[in-house]
Amino acid sequence: MDQLTPKGAATRRDILRAAARVFDAKGYSLARMDDVVLETGLTKGAVYFHFKSKAALARAVVDDQKQGMLAHVRRRLEGLGGPAAQMRGLVPVLVDLVIAEPAGWSVVRLDRELSTESPREHAQASVLAEWVGLVEELLLAGAREGDLRLSADAHALATVFVGAFDGLKGVLEATGRATPEELRRSAGVLAEVVEAAIGAH
Amino acid sequence: MDQLTPKGAATRRDILRAAARVFDAKGYSLARMDDVVLETGLTKGAVYFHFKSKAALARAVVDDQKQGMLAHVRRRLEGLGGPAAQMRGLVPVLVDLVIAEPAGWSVVRLDRELSTESPREHAQASVLAEWVGLVEELLLAGAREGDLRLSADAHALATVFVGAFDGLKGVLEATGRATPEELRRSAGVLAEVVEAAIGAH
Repeated sequence: MDQLTPKGAATRRDILRAAARVFDAKGYSLARMDDVVLETGLTKGAVYFHFKSKAALARAVVDDQKQGMLAHVRRRLEGLGGPAAQMRGLVPVLVDLVIAEPAGWSVVRLDRELSTESPREHAQASVLAEWVGLVEELLLAGAREGDLRLSADAHALATVFVGAFDGLKGVLEATGRATPEELRRSAGVLAEVVEAAIGAH
Repeated sequence: MDQLTPKGAATRRDILRAAARVFDAKGYSLARMDDVVLETGLTKGAVYFHFKSKAALARAVVDDQKQGMLAHVRRRLEGLGGPAAQMRGLVPVLVDLVIAEPAGWSVVRLDRELSTESPREHAQASVLAEWVGLVEELLLAGAREGDLRLSADAHALATVFVGAFDGLKGVLEATGRATPEELRRSAGVLAEVVEAAIGAH
């Protein structure tokens, strides 16, 4: 990105926040740049100065929220100890994050909508790929230290665990049970399932 | 539904098939009734005689495919033996189904898009709720017969397993790895995870 003045950087952040709200409310397909312009209260020129297209804006929203969420989760995990303890803390930390910032979670939906638009270019940048990378790291480090049992290939196992958390939220949403209580309860069961799969005997 | 003549019922099935292709290609938001009319080769009047609105049509597509898929999976599972054997066969059967009929799988996406449109009315009818019900049945029956270990509440566990399979496909799609080989490989790991959680000692 080009150098921005502090004022320019602040404007860019404002646009990203407004765009996140618009994409969240309307979904990627139906959201229009005009909606974002309206939501920011800026001029059309100001918004287009920072983002040339809806796709570029959506991509930037995903990257911004993704970096924020991953950084947040890494910080929370670091306080928990070694890799096995971090792996065990991952589900509760994610549950807290989803409950504290439901809007932040909509990045996963936006990311998926973008991947439908342009699957190939998008593949590398997916936020889900970064979560898989984080979990794979923890599994490998935990197994190296002997605290976790790794019967399957770490990348496949990480893919399964990330999918399980992502899919759990999807099922709760689709079946009308997307409440903090239901998420805590069923994520607790997911944590037991993960433990059964990787807990050292 | 009102009584249809055999010809009327055949037309209705043709419309459902055409609509499934349109929703699959464009997504619910962007698909238009006109696209469906074009895809069927019928008159606009004929299509609207059967379905009054896009939402009604999409709902009917989901119900139709859902019934077909569930019936198919139940038939396949019945050949496998008791509930524990059926539970163990579920992931492979689902993998076969997704690979044989990728279009049939798009019902899950359509279902989710509909649930975003009208979460309340939709909640009861979700295809995911029916899958959760099927898995819960198998878990309870398997535990009753002593072949499966059930440490958590069966409904929560069923929710976690259904979410895990649904989410796994989502992660593979989002990370550009939605191939039959990757699905088989990672679903195999998911099956091991499920086994670790419910296998009798």
